[in-house]
Amino acid sequence: MDLTAAGAAALDRADELAAFRQRFAIPDARLIYLDGNSLGRLPLDTRTRLHALIDEEWANQLIRGWGNGWFEAAERIGAKLAQVVGALPHEVLLADSTSVNLFKLCVAALRAQPGRHIIVTDALNFPSDLYVLQGVLQLLGHPPDALRIVPTADGISVAPAALAAAIDEQTALVMLSHTAFKSGFVHPLAEITALAHARGALTLWDLSHTVGAVPVELHAAHADLAVGCSYKYLNGGPGAPAFLYVHEDLHARLQNPIQGWIGQLDPFAFEPDYVPQPDLRKFLTGTPPVLSLMAIEPALDLLLEAGLARVRAKSLRQTEYLVALWEQQLEPLGYRLQSPRNAQQRGSHISLGHLHALGIDRALIEELHVLPDFRAPDNLRLGIAPLYNTFAELHAAVQHMRTAVLEQRYVKYQDQRPLVT
Amino acid sequence: MDLTAAGAAALDRADELAAFRQRFAIPDARLIYLDGNSLGRLPLDTRTRLHALIDEEWANQLIRGWGNGWFEAAERIGAKLAQVVGALPHEVLLADSTSVNLFKLCVAALRAQPGRHIIVTDALNFPSDLYVLQGVLQLLGHPPDALRIVPTADGISVAPAALAAAIDEQTALVMLSHTAFKSGFVHPLAEITALAHARGALTLWDLSHTVGAVPVELHAAHADLAVGCSYKYLNGGPGAPAFLYVHEDLHARLQNPIQGWIGQLDPFAFEPDYVPQPDLRKFLTGTPPVLSLMAIEPALDLLLEAGLARVRAKSLRQTEYLVALWEQQLEPLGYRLQSPRNAQQRGSHISLGHLHALGIDRALIEELHVLPDFRAPDNLRLGIAPLYNTFAELHAAVQHMRTAVLEQRYVKYQDQRPLVT
Repeated sequence: MDLTAAGAAALDRADELAAFRQRFAIPDARLIYLDGNSLGRLPLDTRTRLHALIDEEWANQLIRGWGNGWFEAAERIGAKLAQVVGALPHEVLLADSTSVNLFKLCVAALRAQPGRHIIVTDALNFPSDLYVLQGVLQLLGHPPDALRIVPTADGISVAPAALAAAIDEQTALVMLSHTAFKSGFVHPLAEITALAHARGALTLWDLSHTVGAVPVELHAAHADLAVGCSYKYLNGGPGAPAFLYVHEDLHARLQNPIQGWIGQLDPFAFEPDYVPQPDLRKFLTGTPPVLSLMAIEPALDLLLEAGLARVRAKSLRQTEYLVALWEQQLEPLGYRLQSPRNAQQRGSHISLGHLHALGIDRALIEELHVLPDFRAPDNLRLGIAPLYNTFAELHAAVQHMRTAVLEQRYVKYQDQRPLVT
Repeated sequence: MDLTAAGAAALDRADELAAFRQRFAIPDARLIYLDGNSLGRLPLDTRTRLHALIDEEWANQLIRGWGNGWFEAAERIGAKLAQVVGALPHEVLLADSTSVNLFKLCVAALRAQPGRHIIVTDALNFPSDLYVLQGVLQLLGHPPDALRIVPTADGISVAPAALAAAIDEQTALVMLSHTAFKSGFVHPLAEITALAHARGALTLWDLSHTVGAVPVELHAAHADLAVGCSYKYLNGGPGAPAFLYVHEDLHARLQNPIQGWIGQLDPFAFEPDYVPQPDLRKFLTGTPPVLSLMAIEPALDLLLEAGLARVRAKSLRQTEYLVALWEQQLEPLGYRLQSPRNAQQRGSHISLGHLHALGIDRALIEELHVLPDFRAPDNLRLGIAPLYNTFAELHAAVQHMRTAVLEQRYVKYQDQRPLVT
């Protein structure tokens, strides 16, 4: 592999997705943005759509906007998102935040299985998913040890066999982050789903770091439940509403604990007793935040235009390229690879550990026009969004990471942890 | 009272808030918009703010936006909203939807009072609030009759004495819509709060039809809990995030059942065990929808600039004016007043019943440039937003309502119920 700047330029010339970068607002071309796994860039079509939504729909249609596309947006956008996660159109909805959706589905799954109360997860899961699970178990009267957290031996991965050993006939739910937020490790979804089903448990996947970057086939794998956010690789905008997936076989059996206005069979009948929608819409609760919700749609259209298979193929090339650069140019400077070596086992970000990771992160941002993110205690995450990140950016970022260490740029920042990392 | 068009013009000339109408986007000046109690108009400052948020903050600051005002927005805007509901700055937060907040606070209130499980509400409450309450009781293992719904004798109001008779030593919570969504009746908040406290129960108020139109003094009344939406008289935009209020005396005692990322003591420490914030922030859960959240702030600034006392004073003048017009010009045509006659007992909308209300509603919208809303089975709601509605609009709307009946404009619409009313 040619690891020179010229080599990067050649890879960009050969990139069939290269033109998609021009579909995003990139006001500062110097900035190497490697945090699309936290907040994706603004698609130009989204900007156009939002301006129209504000200036024409809110201002002029006013309340009539609900009858002209707002009210069904959660379903309409859900049906598009279904294509990205291998679901049927009526198996996905946009609603609330990832945590609220996780709460709803987790409570529903436990209540549907009265004889079981154990939740199996692992130490790679996003901490706030654990908080939700802890809260649900307490709410339903189960002891804290009903949450089984399978440890990770290497800090990077957890093997299916380790999970299998924790799943038993008391297990109600196996709840995992499909792609780990820190290491980027990707669980084999179909294999673990089959494992869980063999012991009579349901599965609930957090796809936040998967969706838009790593293909999954939820329906074909007969995955039971899933949630995820839409502001990372989906480019839905800051805090855009999350999604939830429920396999159609479970629609009748599960009950939403947060019964609300939009999940009612006929919201405008104003009947005093709750009668849920017969389908997935029962999991809707309150009025959705329309501005944030509608922003997701043009971004999703852009992704579907590019095609997830091509996005994944480029992501694999880019993470392999970055790992090769790391091995040659960063490992000698104390950077450790904290993501899987096997490209098939990782998502679209690479984690690098370093003794001075926090200071390096700040120096990259403040002085070197590189924007990665930092995850405590020592982890730099380099998120690659194939729709807009170039090979040249990855090459340049690595040179800046060398500079940060060789010139000890990290020293002045190393005790400064900002509010948001 | 001079009920001619000239009289309306004179009232508008004398209106000290008249200039605020120019602070809103009003692209169609012919439209008489009387649905600000469902979706408030777009303030011009909000449009400017949103364009900057999209084009500069999302596009250019990207993830750094979280460190530059997004992360604390729920608290910052909450502190401003606190001024509108008579709360201390740290007693109000913006988060989620009204229903999700109602769920959180209702579960918290019941869990904090193990010996009590009855919820007292009334038949004027918004139906989806009842759905949430029904769901909470079921989730916590209480029977359906733990929800006591005090009936309304006249369809318009419920007297404190009727509520008092339903509150006993088993009552955990008195949960009411402060301003009724249909009749506009306003409960005496301090009186009912004192009633509940005398029997050891907590109070939870839905302020959706109150906030921004009717002053309340939550803290002074020692009201325990409240929720509400921000897209009606607050003009926060379609589906803007809701708010929640918890009296400071309860911050330590109550627990959020939906434990999440933002309610954690240190979200960026990524610790596996949930440790809640010691204050109200524990009731935050997931990442907020930033576009929809930030839209609330300029609208709130505008309201604070106008002053809620002046807004209420104008609202009282306008609802009295509309009732006078009704009595002279609409009652003879079969319109019935379905709101309280006493101005002090009502919020900022007037409900009029009519045998042909649905057809009249459609004729007003489709043919007569008047936009009220319809609430089944026979109720036209005329929402008055004092920041932008004029007396001339009210006068003209009444003439159109006469036309709709006198010319039988309703006939062609009377069997057509649209999706969203």
